[in-house]
Amino acid sequence: MCTHLEAKDTLEIECSIEKALSVLGGKWTFLIIRDLFCGKRRFGELRRSLCGISPKTLSLRLKELETKGIIERTAYPTIPPTVEYALTEKGKSLKKIIKEMKLWGANWG
Amino acid sequence: MCTHLEAKDTLEIECSIEKALSVLGGKWTFLIIRDLFCGKRRFGELRRSLCGISPKTLSLRLKELETKGIIERTAYPTIPPTVEYALTEKGKSLKKIIKEMKLWGANWG
Repeated sequence: MCTHLEAKDTLEIECSIEKALSVLGGKWTFLIIRDLFCGKRRFGELRRSLCGISPKTLSLRLKELETKGIIERTAYPTIPPTVEYALTEKGKSLKKIIKEMKLWGANWG
Repeated sequence: MCTHLEAKDTLEIECSIEKALSVLGGKWTFLIIRDLFCGKRRFGELRRSLCGISPKTLSLRLKELETKGIIERTAYPTIPPTVEYALTEKGKSLKKIIKEMKLWGANWG
C-alpha cells in the first residue's frame, strides 16, 4: 500500500472501489441488502421493515440490485402470486464491507 | 444481524453507514485518502499522483476532508510556503473498509 501510486494502479483501485460504492452507495440499497442478510423476504415484508420507503422506490432498488447480480427474485405460482427476494453469493460477499462500515460509523461518525 | 429490524436499529445502522459513505463516496476523495496512507503529501505531490485531477477539485476535496476530520493540514513558514497533508487517526481508521472494498471489487466487480 505504500509505494507511490502508478497511474495503472490508481485506475485499478479506482475501478474496484467504484464497483463496491456503486452497489452500496444508496441509503435504501444498503438497508435492503442488510435486511436480506436475515434471509429471504417478500416485497411486503421489505416494505414494512424499511419504514418510510415508497413501493415505487423499493421496486426500483430491487430491480437495480437484481440487474447487478446482488439479489435474486423468485416468483411462485400461487394465487395471488408470491415473489421472494434473496441475496446471491455476490450479495452475501458484501458482508465484510458492511460490517467494517458499521463499526467505523459507530466509532467515528 | 438476523432478527427482524426495528425502526430504531434501522435508523442507527443507516446513520453509521451514511457517515462512512459520506466520507468515502467520491472517486477522488477515496484516492486522496489512499495516497495519504503512504505518508504525508504536499499539494503538488498529490496532484501529480492523482492523474487527471484539477487543482480546484483537489483543493475542494482536501478542504472537505479536513472539515470532516479525516486529514490534517500543516503549513511550514518556508519561502515559498510549504503545506503538507496527513491522515488523522480518524482517517487512518478507514483502512479496513478500504481493504474490504478493494477485495470485493477485485473479486466480484
